[in-house]
Amino acid sequence: MAGSPSERLRELGLLLPPPPGPVGSYAPVVVEKGFAWVSGQVVTSGGSAVHPGAVDAQVSVPQARDLARLATLQGLSALARALGSIDRVLRVVRVAVYVSVSPGFERPHEVANGASDLLVEIFGEAGRPARVAMGVAGLPLGASVEVELTVSVEPGA
Amino acid sequence: MAGSPSERLRELGLLLPPPPGPVGSYAPVVVEKGFAWVSGQVVTSGGSAVHPGAVDAQVSVPQARDLARLATLQGLSALARALGSIDRVLRVVRVAVYVSVSPGFERPHEVANGASDLLVEIFGEAGRPARVAMGVAGLPLGASVEVELTVSVEPGA
Amino acid sequence: MAGSPSERLRELGLLLPPPPGPVGSYAPVVVEKGFAWVSGQVVTSGGSAVHPGAVDAQVSVPQARDLARLATLQGLSALARALGSIDRVLRVVRVAVYVSVSPGFERPHEVANGASDLLVEIFGEAGRPARVAMGVAGLPLGASVEVELTVSVEPGA
Repeated sequence: MAGSPSERLRELGLLLPPPPGPVGSYAPVVVEKGFAWVSGQVVTSGGSAVHPGAVDAQVSVPQARDLARLATLQGLSALARALGSIDRVLRVVRVAVYVSVSPGFERPHEVANGASDLLVEIFGEAGRPARVAMGVAGLPLGASVEVELTVSVEPGA
Repeated sequence: MAGSPSERLRELGLLLPPPPGPVGSYAPVVVEKGFAWVSGQVVTSGGSAVHPGAVDAQVSVPQARDLARLATLQGLSALARALGSIDRVLRVVRVAVYVSVSPGFERPHEVANGASDLLVEIFGEAGRPARVAMGVAGLPLGASVEVELTVSVEPGA
Repeated sequence: MAGSPSERLRELGLLLPPPPGPVGSYAPVVVEKGFAWVSGQVVTSGGSAVHPGAVDAQVSVPQARDLARLATLQGLSALARALGSIDRVLRVVRVAVYVSVSPGFERPHEVANGASDLLVEIFGEAGRPARVAMGVAGLPLGASVEVELTVSVEPGA
């Protein structure tokens, strides 16, 4: 893949959204010993969740996949602020995608593709993460999707 | 912030509870390559969960926030035993707060503040973690809150 | 404990199942800076989940414990392929066991023992992980159990 991750972002026509402020006593990103942990990201607008509710009830799977993509972009924005640039990410090591669902939902992995597809588009094979996806009973602010990223970063980042 | 984390604990009038014995084939804490992973903590008394059930049904949000605080103290107790002292914690990198809820619960982040507020009180900015909070369908022993900590530790710890 | 982990596997009469192909844009295993993250494992046959559904409703706790054991073996198979051999695992640092449940299920830790018991049988004390167990509302393909492993690996692995 040609170009740096930040160049890829521009080629894809993607803008990093403003990094969200934490809604509590936590850090958007913790950088420590060559890794960075990004807090769980939910997509909000004006303090409310965008497309809130349970996926496959109030929210469709394609909508939820888009939210997973946006939440991932938001996480990259938080990383860009913490590191100076997403080009200091060496490897995306883990993505966890939590999907608010009605009991018995069987397709959290399809929602999760919204997160990991984007990471591969931007970082190439270095963006292909280990992944866990699951349906949960409720998320902050009633959000339908939450995305958590863990990455490896350049020395000195 | 003046003083070491263990001094801060005393100033806050907090005692570390006895570290819980594992209820299965796992370790309370694993220390490896400069990090420590603490097993998920639920608050029990005499082998039963304290304030069991779903938050906002059987358990109020303030009660659940208190349980998140106590579960975090318990995790610090397990760390103190594993490391010799909580003063060997360099940085709290991640806290995950799992809240047992009825479907659709929207406030797991308020419960999670019980965990992360305490970490900041004790460790200052070094205790401000990356955080993920979610509502789940059931926890060990019927507990309403489970807290998982990951920290960075001093060399040789 | 006598013998290497791969010898223990043979003594226990266990065969590593074929490593599952990812069902999406993720890596089975990411190895980075001395750690390896294994993607969440669900047990499937012919593209469908084995014993799908909610534990204690469609699936019994002993069945779920067996699935946790099989999912863990599958994760070790993915590690063997990524590392060359499971003998390059130095320490199992974390296992997370996600159990699909009806609301209010109180025994995810009993299901989780299927994962961590096996790790201790194979790796001895080096396999005793920090652990988190929880009941969730739905898993990929309707699976009843998902197991996620994080391990420390030999230099150069």
